[in-house]
Order: sequence, then structure tokens, then C-alpha cells
Amino acid sequence: MLAADKNDKLMRVGPGTLMGTWMRRFWLPALLEEEISEPDGPPAKVRLLGEDFIAFRDTDGRVGLVEAYCAHRLAPLFLGRNEECGIRCVYHGWKFDVDGRCVDMPNEPADSRYKEKISIRALPTIVAGGVVWAYLGPAELKPLRPSALEWTLLPAGHVVVSKRLQENNWAQSVEGAIDSSHVSFLHREWDNVMDPDGTPRRVPKRIAAQVLDDEDQLDFVRRMAADGAPSFRVRPSDFGFWIGARRSTTEPGEFYWRITPFLVPFYTIIPPGTTRLSAATTMDGHAFVPIDDVNTWTYNISWRVDRPFTAKELAHMRGELGTHSLTDADYRPYQNPRNLWGLDRQLQRSTSFTGIVNANTQDRAIQEGMGPMVDRSREHLGTADTAIIAFRRLLLRGAEDLARGKEPETPQQARAFAVRSASVLLPEEDAFDVAAGTALQAFVRPE
Amino acid sequence: MLAADKNDKLMRVGPGTLMGTWMRRFWLPALLEEEISEPDGPPAKVRLLGEDFIAFRDTDGRVGLVEAYCAHRLAPLFLGRNEECGIRCVYHGWKFDVDGRCVDMPNEPADSRYKEKISIRALPTIVAGGVVWAYLGPAELKPLRPSALEWTLLPAGHVVVSKRLQENNWAQSVEGAIDSSHVSFLHREWDNVMDPDGTPRRVPKRIAAQVLDDEDQLDFVRRMAADGAPSFRVRPSDFGFWIGARRSTTEPGEFYWRITPFLVPFYTIIPPGTTRLSAATTMDGHAFVPIDDVNTWTYNISWRVDRPFTAKELAHMRGELGTHSLTDADYRPYQNPRNLWGLDRQLQRSTSFTGIVNANTQDRAIQEGMGPMVDRSREHLGTADTAIIAFRRLLLRGAEDLARGKEPETPQQARAFAVRSASVLLPEEDAFDVAAGTALQAFVRPE
Amino acid sequence: MLAADKNDKLMRVGPGTLMGTWMRRFWLPALLEEEISEPDGPPAKVRLLGEDFIAFRDTDGRVGLVEAYCAHRLAPLFLGRNEECGIRCVYHGWKFDVDGRCVDMPNEPADSRYKEKISIRALPTIVAGGVVWAYLGPAELKPLRPSALEWTLLPAGHVVVSKRLQENNWAQSVEGAIDSSHVSFLHREWDNVMDPDGTPRRVPKRIAAQVLDDEDQLDFVRRMAADGAPSFRVRPSDFGFWIGARRSTTEPGEFYWRITPFLVPFYTIIPPGTTRLSAATTMDGHAFVPIDDVNTWTYNISWRVDRPFTAKELAHMRGELGTHSLTDADYRPYQNPRNLWGLDRQLQRSTSFTGIVNANTQDRAIQEGMGPMVDRSREHLGTADTAIIAFRRLLLRGAEDLARGKEPETPQQARAFAVRSASVLLPEEDAFDVAAGTALQAFVRPE
Repeated sequence: MLAADKNDKLMRVGPGTLMGTWMRRFWLPALLEEEISEPDGPPAKVRLLGEDFIAFRDTDGRVGLVEAYCAHRLAPLFLGRNEECGIRCVYHGWKFDVDGRCVDMPNEPADSRYKEKISIRALPTIVAGGVVWAYLGPAELKPLRPSALEWTLLPAGHVVVSKRLQENNWAQSVEGAIDSSHVSFLHREWDNVMDPDGTPRRVPKRIAAQVLDDEDQLDFVRRMAADGAPSFRVRPSDFGFWIGARRSTTEPGEFYWRITPFLVPFYTIIPPGTTRLSAATTMDGHAFVPIDDVNTWTYNISWRVDRPFTAKELAHMRGELGTHSLTDADYRPYQNPRNLWGLDRQLQRSTSFTGIVNANTQDRAIQEGMGPMVDRSREHLGTADTAIIAFRRLLLRGAEDLARGKEPETPQQARAFAVRSASVLLPEEDAFDVAAGTALQAFVRPE
Repeated sequence: MLAADKNDKLMRVGPGTLMGTWMRRFWLPALLEEEISEPDGPPAKVRLLGEDFIAFRDTDGRVGLVEAYCAHRLAPLFLGRNEECGIRCVYHGWKFDVDGRCVDMPNEPADSRYKEKISIRALPTIVAGGVVWAYLGPAELKPLRPSALEWTLLPAGHVVVSKRLQENNWAQSVEGAIDSSHVSFLHREWDNVMDPDGTPRRVPKRIAAQVLDDEDQLDFVRRMAADGAPSFRVRPSDFGFWIGARRSTTEPGEFYWRITPFLVPFYTIIPPGTTRLSAATTMDGHAFVPIDDVNTWTYNISWRVDRPFTAKELAHMRGELGTHSLTDADYRPYQNPRNLWGLDRQLQRSTSFTGIVNANTQDRAIQEGMGPMVDRSREHLGTADTAIIAFRRLLLRGAEDLARGKEPETPQQARAFAVRSASVLLPEEDAFDVAAGTALQAFVRPE
Repeated sequence: MLAADKNDKLMRVGPGTLMGTWMRRFWLPALLEEEISEPDGPPAKVRLLGEDFIAFRDTDGRVGLVEAYCAHRLAPLFLGRNEECGIRCVYHGWKFDVDGRCVDMPNEPADSRYKEKISIRALPTIVAGGVVWAYLGPAELKPLRPSALEWTLLPAGHVVVSKRLQENNWAQSVEGAIDSSHVSFLHREWDNVMDPDGTPRRVPKRIAAQVLDDEDQLDFVRRMAADGAPSFRVRPSDFGFWIGARRSTTEPGEFYWRITPFLVPFYTIIPPGTTRLSAATTMDGHAFVPIDDVNTWTYNISWRVDRPFTAKELAHMRGELGTHSLTDADYRPYQNPRNLWGLDRQLQRSTSFTGIVNANTQDRAIQEGMGPMVDRSREHLGTADTAIIAFRRLLLRGAEDLARGKEPETPQQARAFAVRSASVLLPEEDAFDVAAGTALQAFVRPE
């Protein structure tokens, strides 16, 4: 449990809040590059940490991320014209470039110099990994670049990134992602997929296709079923901390470790299903970006280092059971609280633990179903919640240190983020992060 | 009128409120039995006096009514699996039985005894009359059983119970039900159904079918039309009070009395249209159960003692003009504030006083149309509002007494509720409840 | 910019507010006459300055505008029966006439005189110009009649009046209407309609139809394009003030003046496109009536003095590009914030500055897009905002004077409102209102 005042501090990220101030020390994912793919194309609305902006790509391909309303009389710039290297307000034609400077003011006399005094807030941006990153903090503290997550360093084609709206506080989503314990339950689809002796059974085709065609996936299923109560260890690191989830195997002295990095302020990388790790392994990660206190953009990221994804792989990822499942054009999931996430009680009785299709949607159903801002003072944590506790402590300590004047070091340590999750077989070992060794290092690192 | 502070006290029922504390001394209707008809079937959401629960029927047929969120990390138990004598949270598999005990905690080590320390709030329940009853008060004050309303004592088949959402405070609905005066107006459908000499006229078939095929109904219509300004008397009783509405008849010294019991905290029984009362009379009653301060479940109950209802009778009750009119699967009426309750101005000009079809919907239109919490300080009550005033005084006195430490006796007096409404011909008589005698006693009483 | 406290005072109009008190000194448009066209027809809901009423036309054709809830138990009178010279509550039959007197109380004894003590608030009303006007202020200060706007004095057929909902504070809409500077931008449809040498180009038919078939309109287009940065002058007058927007022409020493009257508290008249002004000129005006602090009825009014409008003219006005564009039966525009006002980015790139069809909708998109109550403390006004500043000063001064006990004179000066807007060619002239002379006088004036 977390006392009500601490809980409030953990969750709120608006301007001037404790956590919001700390989070503004980092480069943050602001939108998908695809939302403003085209020079002079339509602008996109961006809400980030409770503040409203619009993004646009100018004639020269530069990205602008500026406040949402015109400096003149606060008309909505989203309705504006993106043309000739700037966004032009349609009310009186005032025009702003990607740096927020007013570059045209056609309703003032031709000799007026008033426009030189006018600008709107413009955020620094960087494009990497299919994402537009923004920095909302004090200019003099701006880190050189976003954290060097492996997927931000790969060529297009090697990375698939999508986002979806979650109608809950961002910290609920982070806590879902670093909680390895739920994987044995919430995402269980296999109970009926094989008999106790391992013989596959008749199951709905969509479930079977997911599981039975894939030797790694079957291996994963068997390992998860073998031990539903993993034990957890947390090891601090420069980027945040490592979470080791240790499960028993059939070999004495050998353990199945799933190792997840939590990277501040809100990133995770999911351990692969297979223990045969290589540059060909498809990796999956998340970013949980606060829109405001009660809405979150969940970014799903898939990548592989050795080659670009094939069309077939992409189609699978974007399919009903894929990581990048379909949303409407505003990135709102079709399965949402209004339709109970498509909960099918018949499916729940037969082949799915939840009755909800798609692991991502299962996570979201829990996180949204808790309500917009969960009351952690009513919790009863168990031994499996080690990572949850570590997350809260780390972030609250960082934010409180900053409030006392101590600047965080992590935003400046981009290279520390060049890590990977892993699934490995190890002896019992508290220093699992040392033992796992190079399996936890990114293949691609910043120069 | 009622002063603003008294009005607020009357209406609010959340935890810790004056009226809410008093109401929690009673067994209360929590949901329909049909909502959890099936062992191991889907759970149902229950909101009662501003608190959230879920209900389920376990493998052995026992009813669970437990808080809505898992003790662990507050995942929504409504998404849970109802299986093997308990509701299992789909997040980490924690499982709770109907008494709220944690009976399984599969993500903790096998030898953990943590689960013995964990439980969630579980309400005592009793099933009677097609309704699941719950008790939310202090355990040591729990009455032996719910109030012995006649309909709670009959075999299935003799009772039809349905519910519908009302988007207004519960007290507005109670006041509508104990206000006999409005019957001559709000529910008037007959003005044009017969000529002044009593000859039936051409009317829309659905109106005619309601009125003209039924001798008792015609009798009722004539008696209502004969005196639109009844005089009212209230007589206290152990269960609450009797309301006598006295109307003139064509016989000197004879009066037509419609006698309605108001039973605390929110029950009424409608006087039958006929004065020929017997075990074959179909009785209709209401319960107005607070969901929270601005929403109410109106339970409609019909019963007859002599035999089960026939299929034809059931079809009529559930038809367009019946007491148990159709709602969607969440018990939300199709006629609601968004469509002005189906108000048809043409119908209003021709054969219906309101232009709204169905007497229940007419009541609801008024009660919802007042707004969610009516400002009683702006009222101007008349002589016909005797029962309204008595209701407010009785409940506020009971709740204020309890706040001063005086426990209410009524919750313990279940047998006092074995009464009936009646329509009778009596001389002018203040002690109408004595004069009406056995007509006011239930045919079926608790052993 | 306007300090936050001043901004709040400017916008809020509920009972007891500074601006609301001042505005209640005027006759105000309450609803369209068409909403209660029929004696004994359905009543209409009216919300005005944050207060709720219903309007009805009684059997004798008189208009009632009374509070929305019955004096008895606050049942909604909107559900009532409009019959025999009064609105009858369907709950208990209490009936009120257009003056708010209770004229029937059928649920009280026949000899009761209670009804003589009961009344509901009834506003004084006047019907003029297709609008029902109401007065909400102190009875002893009631002006003889509404302001003598020309369109209120014409016979039916000469005036078209419509209304539409705007989901923003009324002052945002007034400021949009008195801001002549935006016309050169927001409503620009012609950039691609003619080549730089004036040759018409291929354009979408609906745009072409608007512009190219009309010599006056082409003239207007040329004049607007010639000078996008007009200079502004404001001249006070008894009704409010004149706004002169001066644009250069090709003739030295000659200027194109568009002169707009702002008439307190919220009226404007749009300068005609043509400079050939006569009794045959179609005039267009607005009233921006506060429903409450965050919703506004925008009344659009078109009129001509010489003859009634033809069917063809009416069809054009009500068409896609007309001033009186279609709304649903509750006067809610089909193009609204939920569908981004029909914004078409392709159209925006080709022939429309905004990509939104219909000049009225363009205005509304800006005003609603600013949010419900814009924060004027963040503005940066320019030289073109002279009229905006004058509007704020005039209204705040009037309201503050009243708060100090000084009654406003304008409500009593109905005749002062008999003015017109104009488009004229004048020399440079600060006293443009004097120079424009009779062009600014209404053709039709009160007797």
C-alpha cells in the first residue's frame, strides 16, 4: 500500500506538480512520426503531461511542436494552415514557425514590427524510432538526446511503433508492465491448449494459431505453467532497475529467469518467450506516456536488429492477436470500457482466462478497470510485488530529491538505456543481472 | 417546503451520512435474483447507497456480494472468473469465497500463509421474493430477516419482480408513490375513453385494451373521475404509516377509500383498482432503492396469492402498458430523459393527460424531470401532501434519533410488514385503518 | 489582454453577477416566435442567462414565459398541457396563466382559496421581428420596448431570423462579430477563384456559385484582397459604438470603409458587400444571447425593406452556404466540435482558407475552438483589435457603474438603435460616422 498523499504525488504530472516537474527533465515521446508524416500536411493535436500543443511538419520537413492556441486572441492553431514553413492561424493569418516565432502578421500594417515581439511556446523536438520526442523542461538542463533505447537507433523497417489510448493514470500502466507475476494468470490462454501430457487439444483456431505454430511459444507456455509463483529480485541500475523473475524448472539447480528492465520514467522491455536470444529475436517494449492525470498513451514497440520485418510479420503484429492491434484514427481502441473490452464470458469459460482477446487488451482492461486513479492506500501487496514497490520508491525519491534542489542524473545518461530484456536459464543467483551478462546488452548502441 | 439543510439530510445516503447510516440498519434489495441465476455464471455489478460491490452465485448455489475490487492491487473483480466456489481475480488469480475470505493466492509461494490474513468485505445476503437482499450495517445489529412483505413469502410463479433505473434521488420516487392525489391527473387516460354518459368512444386500441376490457378498471376510472380532490389522513403504524385517500361517492355517508401503506425505508403497495378484494387480487408494490444520491433502482413487484400467474398475464405485465415494461439488458428504460420519455404531444391532446405511454413511465418522467435532487425549499405544499410531509418527518426523525444514539426498532419488527393496501367503501372515519380491518392484512404472513 | 478578474466579470451572466445584473436591464431575445407558433401548442424550453423557463402561446395567442418548474412540488412544466389559457402541470393539474398566476388547483378542495396565494415567476414579453423578447430585470425599470433595431420593425416576410447553438461564452461570439479584420482571412474563399489578373478559375461549383454569379460579391472579393490590414477607428454612440474599418483602394485619397455598429449588449450588423446601398440591400445582423456562461444562442437575422424575400432567396439563405444554415430541431448545428465543424483539409489546400464550409460555421469554429471561456489574460492584441478593446471597456464600465448605483441609460433609448451598417467610399476621415451620414440610418424607424 501507499499512503494517500504519496499516491497522489506519484500520479499527478501537470505543470508544477512534484512528479510532473521531475518528468519534465527527460525527453518524452510526444507523438508518432506518422501523425505528421507529410510536409505541409495537417497538424496533429498533442496533449502531454496535461498541457496542450499542436505538432506539424513544415515545408522543409522540420517538426514543430508548439502551444495549441494563437498568441493573438487564442484561436485554435489546430484549425490552422500548415504552409510555407509555418503554421498559419486561420483567424487573422498570424503565422508561426517551428521555433514558435511569429513570422507573418498580415492584419497589421505592412511596416509594423509588432511580430518581432510575438512568439508562442515551442518545444525542442527530436525524431527517432518513429517517434517525435519533446523536451518540456528548463532549456539549460536539456539533455543532448533522448535515452538510447535500442529501438530508437534502428533504421525504419526494423521498428514497428504504435500507440493506443488508455483511460487511466500512467502509473497504473507502468505497474502492470513491470509485474511479471500476472503473466501466468491474466494472459493464460493455454490451459486448454494442451492436455497435461502435452498433447495439443482442439481449440479455437485463433488461439491455436498463436500458440501451436510456434515452438518458442510452446516452450514459453510450458515454462509458465510449470511455476505460477515466481520469486522476484530487483537490482538497481543507472537507467532504473532490473527485475528478475525466477521460476523453477525440471532441472535441479537450474532456474528459468525472465529479466525485465524498468527504465525511468516509464519504459519497459518484455522478456522474449524464447531463451534462444540473438539479433534475430523480436523484442517488444512499452512506453506509458501521461496525456494527463487520467489518460495515458501506451506506446507499443517491436523491433529486430538483423533485418527489417516482413509484410507477413507486420500483418500478424497488427492482427487481432498482435501487439499493435487496431484502433480508430484517433488511436482509441475499439475494445474499451464502454463495451467491457469485448469480454466474452463463454470464451472465459473455455479457452481464455479472461475472456478478453489480445494480451494488450487484457492488460488495459485491468488497468482501466481499476478506475482512473487507483487508491493504493487500500492495497495488500505480496512477495510478487517487489518491482512495484521499487518503482514507487525510485520515482518518488527522484521527484522529492529534485524538489529539494537535487537535479536527477539519469536524463543525462542516455547510453545507460542501451539494454535488453532476456529469458535465460541460470543457477539461483541474486546477481542475476551480472550472471545474465551480455544477454542484457543492446545489440545496437549509440556511437 | 423543507429547509435546504433538512432536504440534504433527507436525500444523501452515502457512507457516513445521516440517512445513509439509518438506512444501513435495514435489509435492502441489492439486485434481482435473475441477475445471478446460474451457479458459476457471470458476476453482476451492484451499486448500493453509493458503494460498489459485485454479486455472484457460487458452484454450490450460494450468493456472494463482495466489494468490487480485489484486495491485492484493486483490479476489478467484475472481470473475474466465477469458479469452484469463489470469484477469482483475473489479474493474479487471487480467489475469494462468498464470505470474502481469500481462499487461493496462486502467485505466492506454495507454503505462504499470507492468504489467511486477506479478505474483502462481504455483505450478508438472503434471497426472497426473487430478490437478493443485503445488510450493510453493523454485524451485531443485523435483523434476523428482511421485512416480511407479503411478496417476499410467496413461491416463485406467484411473484413478478422487475427493476428499472431512475436518474433521480430515491426520495423523489418515494414521494411520487405515496402521493395518491396525482393518480387523478398524471395517469388520466380516460377522459376521452367514454362520453359523459359513460358510453365508450373510439380510442387508440392500446388505451382501449387497457381500460374497456376490464370491469374493475372501468369502475376505477369512474370513481377517480368522480372526485379529483380526495382528502388525506395519515395513521402511524409499526412499519411506517397508513395513508387514507378519501373520495366522495354517489351514496351519502359512503366514501371510497384508497389506503396505501408506506413501509420504511422505501416501500409502498398500490391500492387495487377494485373494491372486490380477495386472494385472487393482483397486488402491485414498489421499492425505491438508492443506487447513490442521484440514481435509484425502482423495483416493481406484482403478486397474487391464490395461484401462479398465467403466461397471458405475464405477457400483459411485460407489455407496453404493463407494470414491468421493457428495459435494456442493464435495466435502463428505453423511454428516458434523452428522448423525453417518448412524449407524444398529439397523444397528449387526444387521449392521454401526459402524452406519455405507461403509468410507470409517467411517474418516472415527473420524478426524473424534477432534476436529480429537487430543491424542496422552493415547494408550496397543499392539503393533499399530508403523506409527503409525514414521510419526511418520519425518516428524518428516525435518522436523527439514531445519530443521537437511539437505535431504530423497525428493522427488528419484520412481522409488522405483513400488510396490504386496499380500496374500500367506508363511512367517514379518521380511523380508516381500523375500519378497513382485515382488508389491510396480508394473506400470507411469516410463520 | 484582460486581467483574469476582469475577464471573469466580462463573461459571467448568471443571477447576481456583475455583467448579468447589467444585462438584465435590457429586453433580451428569449426564443424564436416559431418555437411557440401555435396557440395551445407544445411549450418550449428556454434557458436565458443561466435561468430556466418555459414558453407557451395560450389559447388567445398570448405568450407566456414562466419559470420551468411548478410551484407545488417542482414538477417540470415543460411536460405540461397547454390548454384553455394556461399551462397545466401534469402531476396534479395545477394551472398557470401567462402572468404566472395559479388559475386552477384541482387537487385541492373545491372551496379552497389556496391558489390565490400561488404564482410562478412570469417574465414580461414582447413579440417583434420573429423573436419573443423578455425582460428579466426589476419591474419598475422595465423599458417601454426592446431596442428599435430595424429588423424588429418590419412585417413578416421581410425578415428571416434563425438561431443556432454555440458552445462558448457569448462574449467570444460578440468579439468575433465586431472584428472586421478577420474577414480578409477566415472567410477567404477567393484566392483560387481568380487569377492575379482577375480571370475566374475552375473552382468547386459551390464556391463558384457563391462568388462568381454575383457582381457585388466579386467587387467585395477584390476590395478585401486589395488590403488585408485595414486600420480601425471606433466612435462612441448612444447605442454603443461605430467601428470603421478603412481599407486602401486604387484611387488616391479614397478609402473603402466598412462600418459596423456594435449595439449593447450583444448586437451587430454586418456591412453589406456592395457599396450600392438602398432599401433593396439585404442586411444581415446578429444577436449573441447568453444561454449561460458556456453556451450562446447566435441569432442570425436577414432583412430587406423594399419587399419580402422571394422563395428562391429564402432557399439560398437556408442552403449550405447561406446565413441560416441547417441545424437539427433543437437548433444544434450539424457541423460542431464533435466533427471538427466538417473541416476538410483537402478543401483547405485548394479553395478555402479554413477548409470549413459556410462563413457562419467558420466563425463558430474559431469561437468554439477557443474553449468555452477563453483566458484573455494570455492574449496579445494588435492595432486591429481596437473594437475588441472598446467592447470590453464599454460593457465593464456599464456594469461596474450599475454596481455602484448608476443605472444605465441605454435600455431606455430604444430609438437610438435605428441604425444600419454600411460599406462606403470616403476620404480619410476620423469622423467616418458623420461622413457616412444617412447611409448609417435605418430606413424604417419607430414611430
